[in-house]
Amino acid sequence: MNNQLDPNKKEKVLTGDRATGQLHLGHYVGSLQQRISLQDQYEQTILVADLQGLTDNGHNPKKVSSNILNVVADYLAVGIDPNKTTICLQSAIPALSELTMYYSNLVSVARLQRNPTVKNEIAGKSFGASIPTGFLTYPISQAADITAFKATLVPVGDDQLPMIEQTNEIVRKLNNVAGEEILVECRPLLSKVTRLPSMDGKAKMSKSMGNCIYLGSSEKEISKAVKSMYTDPNHLKIEDPGQIEGNVVFTYLDAFHPDVAYVADLKAQYQAGGLGDGTTKKILEECLQETLKPIREAREGFTSDKAQLIEILKAGSEKSKEESNQVLNDVKRAFGLDLF
Amino acid sequence: MNNQLDPNKKEKVLTGDRATGQLHLGHYVGSLQQRISLQDQYEQTILVADLQGLTDNGHNPKKVSSNILNVVADYLAVGIDPNKTTICLQSAIPALSELTMYYSNLVSVARLQRNPTVKNEIAGKSFGASIPTGFLTYPISQAADITAFKATLVPVGDDQLPMIEQTNEIVRKLNNVAGEEILVECRPLLSKVTRLPSMDGKAKMSKSMGNCIYLGSSEKEISKAVKSMYTDPNHLKIEDPGQIEGNVVFTYLDAFHPDVAYVADLKAQYQAGGLGDGTTKKILEECLQETLKPIREAREGFTSDKAQLIEILKAGSEKSKEESNQVLNDVKRAFGLDLF
Repeated sequence: MNNQLDPNKKEKVLTGDRATGQLHLGHYVGSLQQRISLQDQYEQTILVADLQGLTDNGHNPKKVSSNILNVVADYLAVGIDPNKTTICLQSAIPALSELTMYYSNLVSVARLQRNPTVKNEIAGKSFGASIPTGFLTYPISQAADITAFKATLVPVGDDQLPMIEQTNEIVRKLNNVAGEEILVECRPLLSKVTRLPSMDGKAKMSKSMGNCIYLGSSEKEISKAVKSMYTDPNHLKIEDPGQIEGNVVFTYLDAFHPDVAYVADLKAQYQAGGLGDGTTKKILEECLQETLKPIREAREGFTSDKAQLIEILKAGSEKSKEESNQVLNDVKRAFGLDLF
Repeated sequence: MNNQLDPNKKEKVLTGDRATGQLHLGHYVGSLQQRISLQDQYEQTILVADLQGLTDNGHNPKKVSSNILNVVADYLAVGIDPNKTTICLQSAIPALSELTMYYSNLVSVARLQRNPTVKNEIAGKSFGASIPTGFLTYPISQAADITAFKATLVPVGDDQLPMIEQTNEIVRKLNNVAGEEILVECRPLLSKVTRLPSMDGKAKMSKSMGNCIYLGSSEKEISKAVKSMYTDPNHLKIEDPGQIEGNVVFTYLDAFHPDVAYVADLKAQYQAGGLGDGTTKKILEECLQETLKPIREAREGFTSDKAQLIEILKAGSEKSKEESNQVLNDVKRAFGLDLF
């Protein structure tokens, strides 16, 4: 890494979400909690990635457009503070598309096709022979997002590490064309939390699987979801010893229950025999209801004032527009395209 | 075609050149003369395509940046009138990059790889396994250029017809997503003139081959180029019968000499025997010197006032920015991304 940072200047964090659904508990433990603490230490920008959401929803844009304000409400509800964190909308920042155009001349098609993240994602989707161009090229767009804000820290899951690598390749190529350090390399900030599984324990919690506890889920929905959770299929009677591994209830207790010692006791009791799934589910449900009640209520407040959500997103986007235009001007100068 | 045009409204023409070199006689007969007449009948926009020029010059951007004003000077020198024709710079119009992003979600990678124009161009270049992403995807960018101006007429050579087809596919897909006719289909305006060959007759005149008579070529350069022209290698003595086909001198006489009957007489004489290559070359040189002298002089005037060239390009780009932003707004609305 070659980031010569001014020690007096806060490092910049760039993060965001595809606006393709409401945010859920997986986001809460995987990224939102981290962002709440990051906003006090760093200059943080959160990008509502509507353009990236369109890369596999080009023919179904409503999935994206209908979720933009949902995502903003989710952010605010968990405590992301627009006075500390810039929340902006990707499609409202022209420099992001313009930078993508410039960078796409520095990346070969073969390099994109080799990107392990994109390769896996394509394999997991039902594109067939019709991979949308925007989907194959989205690592270039992501590099534009990161560099447009001169972000040096990018919170990611380990499956996203190849995106950081590809971004830094573009940074080096662009700086090489420019003959000076116009763009800065970034480094990943790996999430400490394991991924939350879906209720049936088979996959990670995913909005695309429709198998979620959302931040806005009702009391009833939470209750129903917890009751449906996969535990230990061999734990038939309360007095039987039960298994913790793969037991979704305990995974969630680990992620959400504030009293770690208490959860350790529960685990020991469950493994020894004598603790029923009804009891563990009741404990988990109470904990989740308590965690989500203030978030749901705050969320309802925010979603009832659409104009305010738009105002926040607009103000953040205006600020981001100015910031990213400066980087765009540097990049245009690097290519000699600064006539006027 | 489904262009419901207002008969009271002038049709729009979009045309342009990659800014990768000075324009030459091939451009003059292939497109510039046509544009001079189009500007009186249509609303014409000429795009100086610097971004497209970068798609195969990403690591050599000077080839593009150093030629932008050359191309503008060439336009003005031949009589393209900025009061009749909007001359604008691709990189100065953010909507063109933004539209490219939207459209790239509606075009599959396989479809781009099947585009015959791009396929041929890739085969003719020395990319090896490293095809720049921007080069593969430039048909999408070109569709953005055409649609951003609601152009219905696009002057092209027959090798460019697949680009028009690809553009209209995008138009139909976008209108389908929108559920209304937001974009208009375009049709090609085929050039009537055969391509001018290079001096040796082996290829078409091409700036990349360095085998050109430029609009700005000096008297001496023109003279040298004509003297080097390929004629009929079997026409050894003046009294021998000569061949017209493949004889570069006659191809140029056909393209440039104003007196068609006189050229027909020369041909008959040449074929019968008794007309030497020295004579035909002298006639051609006189004709070319006469054609190019006023253009060269006008060009010198324009290139000596760089500020004026920039002013013209800037004014045209500002106008184009407004026009294309309207289309961008329509497209964003089609995708539901018109929150603010």
